Amino acid sequence: MNDVNWSKKEKEAAREAFDKAYKREIESLVEEVRQKVANISEIDEVWQLHDFLSAKRHEIDGKYDYSYSALIFVFSQLLKEGWLTLDELQVLERDKLAKISALTRM
Amino acid sequence: MNDVNWSKKEKEAAREAFDKAYKREIESLVEEVRQKVANISEIDEVWQLHDFLSAKRHEIDGKYDYSYSALIFVFSQLLKEGWLTLDELQVLERDKLAKISALTRM
Repeated sequence: MNDVNWSKKEKEAAREAFDKAYKREIESLVEEVRQKVANISEIDEVWQLHDFLSAKRHEIDGKYDYSYSALIFVFSQLLKEGWLTLDELQVLERDKLAKISALTRM
Repeated sequence: MNDVNWSKKEKEAAREAFDKAYKREIESLVEEVRQKVANISEIDEVWQLHDFLSAKRHEIDGKYDYSYSALIFVFSQLLKEGWLTLDELQVLERDKLAKISALTRM
C-alpha cells in the first residue's frame, strides 16, 4: 500500500493520530524515567537507566515509521499497546480499519 | 610505573580514594539527571537526556582506569575536577604526590 491509497483527509488524520501516540508514549517514558531516577540507590543503577533508555530509543525509533506502506502495521501495533484507540482512527477508510483491526488480533 | 612501586598501604588508600571519587561523581551525575528529567518539557528532550548519559558513560568509563600505570594521571584528573582533595591522597609516597600535584597544574 503506498500513498496513492490515502486521501488527503486520511493522511491528515493519520499524521495526527501518529503524533498523538508518539507524544503519549514519550510522556509515559518520561514518567517512567522520573520514577527510575527517583529510586536510584546503588551507583551502578545510573547505567541501568542508560541501558533502559538505549533499548527504548531503539524500540521507539523502529516502531514509529511514518511511511504509507508501513502505517497499517504501525497503527495496529499502537492500538495493541494502548497508545491509540480505534475511535481515533475512525476517519480512515473502512478497508484500512478492517486491516488494522485484523492485525491487532494476531 | 607498575604495581611494584606501590606499597600495600598505598594500594589500599588508592583504592579507597578512587572508589570515593567515583561514588561522588556518580552521585552528582544522578542529581544532574534528576534535574534534567524534572525539566523535560519538549518530547525530544528525553533523547537529549539519553545522549547526555551516553557521553557521560563514555567519559567516566575512560577516566576511571584503575591500573597502577595510569593511577597518577587518573588522580591528577580527579583532583582537577574536584572529585578528590590532595588531603585524601596524603598516604601516598612523597614522589607520587609530587607527580600528581605537578600534573594538576598542567
